Amino acid sequence: MPDKNKIDSWISSRKKRLDSLNAEELYPQILNGDKQALSSAITLIESQSSENHVEARSLIEKCISINRKSWRIGITGVPGVGKSTFIEAFGKIVLESGHKLAVLAIDPSSNVSGGSILGDKTRMDWLSKQDNAFIRPTATGGNLGGVARNSRDALLLCEAAGYDVIFVETVGVGQSETMVHDMVDYFLLLMLAGAGDELQGMKRGIMELADTLLITKADSGNEKKSEMARREYANAVHLFPPKSSQWVTNVIATSSVSGLGLKEAWKNVENYFNQIMLNGYYEANRLSQNSKFLKSNLSGLVLSEIENNSKLKQYIQKLEMDIKEGHISITSAVEKLYKAYKDSIK
Amino acid sequence: MPDKNKIDSWISSRKKRLDSLNAEELYPQILNGDKQALSSAITLIESQSSENHVEARSLIEKCISINRKSWRIGITGVPGVGKSTFIEAFGKIVLESGHKLAVLAIDPSSNVSGGSILGDKTRMDWLSKQDNAFIRPTATGGNLGGVARNSRDALLLCEAAGYDVIFVETVGVGQSETMVHDMVDYFLLLMLAGAGDELQGMKRGIMELADTLLITKADSGNEKKSEMARREYANAVHLFPPKSSQWVTNVIATSSVSGLGLKEAWKNVENYFNQIMLNGYYEANRLSQNSKFLKSNLSGLVLSEIENNSKLKQYIQKLEMDIKEGHISITSAVEKLYKAYKDSIK
Repeated sequence: MPDKNKIDSWISSRKKRLDSLNAEELYPQILNGDKQALSSAITLIESQSSENHVEARSLIEKCISINRKSWRIGITGVPGVGKSTFIEAFGKIVLESGHKLAVLAIDPSSNVSGGSILGDKTRMDWLSKQDNAFIRPTATGGNLGGVARNSRDALLLCEAAGYDVIFVETVGVGQSETMVHDMVDYFLLLMLAGAGDELQGMKRGIMELADTLLITKADSGNEKKSEMARREYANAVHLFPPKSSQWVTNVIATSSVSGLGLKEAWKNVENYFNQIMLNGYYEANRLSQNSKFLKSNLSGLVLSEIENNSKLKQYIQKLEMDIKEGHISITSAVEKLYKAYKDSIK
Repeated sequence: MPDKNKIDSWISSRKKRLDSLNAEELYPQILNGDKQALSSAITLIESQSSENHVEARSLIEKCISINRKSWRIGITGVPGVGKSTFIEAFGKIVLESGHKLAVLAIDPSSNVSGGSILGDKTRMDWLSKQDNAFIRPTATGGNLGGVARNSRDALLLCEAAGYDVIFVETVGVGQSETMVHDMVDYFLLLMLAGAGDELQGMKRGIMELADTLLITKADSGNEKKSEMARREYANAVHLFPPKSSQWVTNVIATSSVSGLGLKEAWKNVENYFNQIMLNGYYEANRLSQNSKFLKSNLSGLVLSEIENNSKLKQYIQKLEMDIKEGHISITSAVEKLYKAYKDSIK
């Protein structure tokens, strides 16, 4: 049985710690690359309390003025594909190339339970001990919109702290992958050789989002199968529609144990960023991502305004009853609600 | 090479056919259960032309007043799981129990290409020839919001036409499954025995949405493996969080070839609906689905109003540049845009 007093004291000390966080103090520390401050700042933006929100907002406004351009790299793959060991081995190459690397792990709570399937930092033991690496799981509350907002803010904080390569890691669950794809410049899909046709069928939507497919675990007698899978996928990706980045999706077989393909994979990332910096896609894509995010946040704001307006809330209940009784269609109800909303802000 | 004249004449004859569709004529035919009229009506609601929209709206308003309560059943599973043969065999039992069955197949275009992975009606050869069955693939335009709207309208039309059991079939791609779950009363997930752990890991979010897991293809020497999988899943589902329907997810092994488990599966559906009709979940769930749908449609409407307002559109472009230059955060931009939007409708 957990000791209630202990828990209470932990909660109150955590609250004190959060209360003491403020933008004025954190900002210069983050610019200096202080990992503890960066970590506290991410805790601050994830906090649900409204006081912390004010501080978090102020901190973000300061940090965006830095406007450092990092390489944002999304990494996804089903559980068991070997994401952690890949990130550990791949991260080493990134550091050796002289970069500072941040790894944000997004925990895709399942739709119903909000359960977590990520482990902790110790999954990347070596990387977590390096001066130039920062690893952070992002806590989620089940609300994908909130996760997207927090993760994007965490990206900005890491950039302000001087991390020029950022991995955003997520697990193979449809919606979180699309969300991560919408906040990165480059999207890496890890796959296992021979995981079955059903799997591949299901992954097609995600495969089309990927800039590179990486076959993992091409070792321990798996080499031939992986090479066959690589060829097969390389043929398949040619059938995909062309990307606006003009990048042609490619396939690389790797082993996090033997190191096979890892340097090639990093060279590939460098080529990708060289190409999209030159052809304007890097800027254009960020603009379009921001635009999409701006709009989805705006509709979120409208909805929360409506839900906080008691008159409109009552009206929604009336409309819902009318729909239930078959008096009006949802489309008509939407129009009526929109009219009432417009009247409310006049 | 397709003959251009032929295509033109096909397009113009299709346009004429659509133009001639009107709510006044279609409505009584639908109430009479005329399948041709029902089919035309669904084509009408799927049409993108604004004239057709007016007729479609008028038809829906008429049909909802009928307010017939059907059993809406979502059916999903990865390609290869045997959905079509299952629906053929299961549908037969539904018809034999004296029901009228409509099958709406939702075609989940992939995120990027809008490609289709559904075949045509001939997948359900026997069913499509039965008087009391109606089978219809729903065309999609890649926009999930539009698909959801069309599918919900198609459900209402089928209900007005007297179909009291409706299958909404979709393929195992994350977002379309959640969308279908949000429009049905009961959610059936088809699974293969031994399709690998990776697959199961990826499906967990979807598994938690399911009311019943059906193991398919428990035949041709697969019986033992299927029974083992059934037990394994039956243990796993007990760890899932309880549902607000108070229904406990169960697992049934079936064969569309031998008929194993199919009657049991239909009995199970009857038990489910008896339970949720009694405990109020049926009504409560429909209310909450409508509420969610109402709100998401409202935000869609707000966004399209903003995009059709040239002043606001310009302002968005300015904000996007400010974000790009690091002058403001997206959160500030959202607030500014919301203010401008409110000013615009004053």
